[in-house]
Amino acid sequence: MPILNKDMLLCISLSGRPSNIGTRFHNYLYDELGVNMIYKAFSTDDIAAAIGGVRALGIRGCSVSMPFKEEVIPLVDEIEESAAAIESINTIVNENGRLVASNTDYEAIAALIASNELDPTAPVIVRGSGGMAKAVVAAFRGAGFDDLTVVARNVGAGSALAAKYGYRHTVDEPEPVAAILVNVTPIGMAGVDEDVLSFHADQIDAATVVFDVVAFPAETPFIRAARAAGKQVITGAEVIALQAARQFERYTGIAITADQVARASEFSRQV
Amino acid sequence: MPILNKDMLLCISLSGRPSNIGTRFHNYLYDELGVNMIYKAFSTDDIAAAIGGVRALGIRGCSVSMPFKEEVIPLVDEIEESAAAIESINTIVNENGRLVASNTDYEAIAALIASNELDPTAPVIVRGSGGMAKAVVAAFRGAGFDDLTVVARNVGAGSALAAKYGYRHTVDEPEPVAAILVNVTPIGMAGVDEDVLSFHADQIDAATVVFDVVAFPAETPFIRAARAAGKQVITGAEVIALQAARQFERYTGIAITADQVARASEFSRQV
Repeated sequence: MPILNKDMLLCISLSGRPSNIGTRFHNYLYDELGVNMIYKAFSTDDIAAAIGGVRALGIRGCSVSMPFKEEVIPLVDEIEESAAAIESINTIVNENGRLVASNTDYEAIAALIASNELDPTAPVIVRGSGGMAKAVVAAFRGAGFDDLTVVARNVGAGSALAAKYGYRHTVDEPEPVAAILVNVTPIGMAGVDEDVLSFHADQIDAATVVFDVVAFPAETPFIRAARAAGKQVITGAEVIALQAARQFERYTGIAITADQVARASEFSRQV
Repeated sequence: MPILNKDMLLCISLSGRPSNIGTRFHNYLYDELGVNMIYKAFSTDDIAAAIGGVRALGIRGCSVSMPFKEEVIPLVDEIEESAAAIESINTIVNENGRLVASNTDYEAIAALIASNELDPTAPVIVRGSGGMAKAVVAAFRGAGFDDLTVVARNVGAGSALAAKYGYRHTVDEPEPVAAILVNVTPIGMAGVDEDVLSFHADQIDAATVVFDVVAFPAETPFIRAARAAGKQVITGAEVIALQAARQFERYTGIAITADQVARASEFSRQV
């Protein structure tokens, strides 16, 4: 245990159910890079006062998770395009009392679509209609994809999401086949349908790319099946690590390497 | 450098000019005692929002220094007698969203008057009329002292302070002699009249107890002269250590030994 000092900048997270992931990810890199900052997860039952406290205490950065991603919109001073595009904030940087908001989930997904060289002419199925599904659908739209189907049981959320970005929505089973399958539901998450495939085996067979946003575990049944079938895969662990890296860069001004991200990410998951 | 965790409780200080003292004192003892807490100094230009943040973020404790000790009075939920007696708060404990305020400066001075067995029939001179002088004068009143003179150039503050507790005030030089001399001005402080005696040599000669609230350095000219003359002395280092120990106990629920206080205090002063 080190002795802290008054000049350390504090970064926090605000979520309904704090985990240790962000706390371990950021502090691991602060330590490795000799950054005089600390990071700790918080929750709150008064989001307006909590954000007021971030501003008044000079807390440098604030990561925002469910259920606060929309609630903080009226509480910040500036909203970058990544957050405005999906009306959802997951990152607030305090620039001398001015709170600047962005969405690094959107940025991470857009970056993974680009780095994996996904074909914008390929048909895409996105399963889910929550906040993260909005980031996924918006990122595919931003990358120029024209053929995308939102599959969601929630008719209101699913149809609104699809309509907002000019895509189709279906309530029932997805289209039989698509080149790119994206799961943005909790199916396959530890403790939540953890043995269930989020797409059918024949859909996986017919696909070329399988993308699962579930991060715990990263190796969901969907991802395992896709790997076994030799498909190109993108995991939720990649999303969470990349979005955390973007937050780290915003909070510290330091760009980190893929290797540093991988080590911090691995460390953060040992909980 | 350790890796922090989400369950750590945060304690902070709020002051106009943060020092490293409290940060080092508290974290030293958290480390030694294995307490899962961290402590860091902050400043603010919006004290109401900062205290709102303490409540909303579940920050466990908040030490309050100049210039916020009076400003926080309307911002807390309950004021203990130690703070109410002097209308000055230096400690806020967050009990599940309910902010309970006290003043451990007052408590420390009262405890030092008692542990040093100062004679309540002895005449006392208190030099100074600021916030700390209020704590000193109130503590002597609380300990049953009847003969006390407040010496202060500031006529308004000095006469008001003396009148509030039923004592005398004088603007000019103190009474020629008194058994107990207390300095609550910055005279003797590093960088502020650091070579100046806060009382005359003949006053020190005639006194039995010399009490200096200046903590940096603890060995002021006043204290050094008193030691040389074989007087009983009480130093500002004792006040600051004892008040910090009281804060520590309130924040953690753990009573600490005089030896632990002494070691943490010594560590905290290595800045």
